Amino acid sequence: MKTKQIVLASRPKGIPLLENFNTKDFELAEIKDNEVLLEAMYFSVDPYMRGRMNDAKSYVPPFEIGKPITGGVIAKVIKSNTGNFKENDIVTGNLPWQQHCNALATSLLKIDTSIAPASYYLGILGMPGLTAYFGLMHIGKPKAGETVVVSGAAGAVGLVVGQIAKIQGCRVVGIAGTDEKLKLLKEEFGFDEVINYKTCTNLKKAITDACPKAVDIYYDNVGGETSDAVISNINFNARIVLCGQIALYNSTEIPMGPRLQPMLLTRSVLMQGFIIGNYQSQFGEGTKQLATWIKEGKLKYKETIVKGFDKLPAALLGLFEGDNIGKMIVKA
Amino acid sequence: MKTKQIVLASRPKGIPLLENFNTKDFELAEIKDNEVLLEAMYFSVDPYMRGRMNDAKSYVPPFEIGKPITGGVIAKVIKSNTGNFKENDIVTGNLPWQQHCNALATSLLKIDTSIAPASYYLGILGMPGLTAYFGLMHIGKPKAGETVVVSGAAGAVGLVVGQIAKIQGCRVVGIAGTDEKLKLLKEEFGFDEVINYKTCTNLKKAITDACPKAVDIYYDNVGGETSDAVISNINFNARIVLCGQIALYNSTEIPMGPRLQPMLLTRSVLMQGFIIGNYQSQFGEGTKQLATWIKEGKLKYKETIVKGFDKLPAALLGLFEGDNIGKMIVKA
Repeated sequence: MKTKQIVLASRPKGIPLLENFNTKDFELAEIKDNEVLLEAMYFSVDPYMRGRMNDAKSYVPPFEIGKPITGGVIAKVIKSNTGNFKENDIVTGNLPWQQHCNALATSLLKIDTSIAPASYYLGILGMPGLTAYFGLMHIGKPKAGETVVVSGAAGAVGLVVGQIAKIQGCRVVGIAGTDEKLKLLKEEFGFDEVINYKTCTNLKKAITDACPKAVDIYYDNVGGETSDAVISNINFNARIVLCGQIALYNSTEIPMGPRLQPMLLTRSVLMQGFIIGNYQSQFGEGTKQLATWIKEGKLKYKETIVKGFDKLPAALLGLFEGDNIGKMIVKA
Repeated sequence: MKTKQIVLASRPKGIPLLENFNTKDFELAEIKDNEVLLEAMYFSVDPYMRGRMNDAKSYVPPFEIGKPITGGVIAKVIKSNTGNFKENDIVTGNLPWQQHCNALATSLLKIDTSIAPASYYLGILGMPGLTAYFGLMHIGKPKAGETVVVSGAAGAVGLVVGQIAKIQGCRVVGIAGTDEKLKLLKEEFGFDEVINYKTCTNLKKAITDACPKAVDIYYDNVGGETSDAVISNINFNARIVLCGQIALYNSTEIPMGPRLQPMLLTRSVLMQGFIIGNYQSQFGEGTKQLATWIKEGKLKYKETIVKGFDKLPAALLGLFEGDNIGKMIVKA
């Protein structure tokens, strides 16, 4: 059958551009034994994908030029050559940016849409939700009464981190880049204080004011000067969870900043970088807890859904402009 | 009785100078109940003292202008008004820089000179030895076969860290600033590789060459550009133990350097600042283990002993010039 795919046309230098992607028509082969034919429903776009556009060694291999971008996808089974899946099953997997694709049964997970809508499995019940859960609970180790600061607070991970911290009895301060996001964090998601890093004239002081007892946990999704301002307010025995550094992903040179070690040393601070893959053996525990909180109404969810397969590159680029509130999804 | 003390005359800006100290004769009062009269034997000079010369909030309060410097001291009891100590007992405590002083019995510990010479209780069996032990074992958590890099390797802490890492079956690479120190590290203390950060033209590459499987544990006593070079060679799941930042202690502005978070994130690295006070409840365990290794001949020790009470300020200043090999001590 004829279908469409989006491939990496060239590697970006600095900020990625639409011209780094190319949409192509192609002929999809017939499925083989143990394969299914899938029709894509939702695609996930995530900040970490920027790193894969570089030709650099990291925890995931780089995308290849001329090959389709891959990422988290929710899809419907159209045709099955395996006993594991039947027509109309809804599945998730790491799949190519294609309207249709053939996939090995062993690379897919069936999802339960009676618990939550299908797209949630790319967000709060998928990689971003688990990232929030394990980063905060296993590295941050929040205690009731502590102050938690979240950067990128209105993003897919940040929104969940803030809410889990509230469930743990913490004071939660969110940092984001538009007043619309701040309003949402405070009014819908229960953040105690919010700060607009773009319009704030003195971010360090704004954090001091919002955190009179200093910062016990900093869940960092952005890095750069926002992190400098938070870390200058860090408490003794604080934990810094390094989850994302979106402010730096488009840097072409190694960015410079104030040296952190003297502060981390004299205040006995822990800083831990992590990727969600480290917790793979505990995904079941995490998903179960997140689903329970959703069912109990303790955890709310927000998506920005962009419509149209062709919009995938623009949606990914939009992450770096802060276009999304909550999880950014592309509906095929 | 008449005796001498050394007080903080003024706070240094940047590198401390001899003129920041003042030696004074004064009349010591008679001891009261529960006090002892002490005659100083050995004084410890340590890099952390530089921080106390600033008027800044930290984990220890600043020294006061016109008041004596205080630190680790070994002293002999001359006269006792307490049942806890008798004449000629050798004790250790946090005491003023004075030839004689009065001290409360509750602030002192008697030391056992049958296990090791008295001065060892300021070094390998005191704060620096415990700092090496807890930082490496509790934060670094070395596994046999891993690569450990120690900066400030010929200092009081570094020498012990390297030897404990060898006891744990690690490959140990030491960084120091003179060829005399390097020779000692390799020939007497069993370091596998050594690097002179002062004469090396490309420190990053030298570390790559010395650590072909990358750096699993970085025990950092110095900070600055040495740390940049080590961290650019850091392995996935590595641990960075932040013990000292002597390269930065005399900075008058916040020093700048490459931002570390992207590297720590993508390689799932832990960085932990600590001070030895955090482990106070476990000092007994640490001292016992260190004494056992000394007795078994697995742990060697080295001191640089400066003679003369009046030399205390110069000895402290010498730490920042790398004058010492092993623990720097002043003999009264």
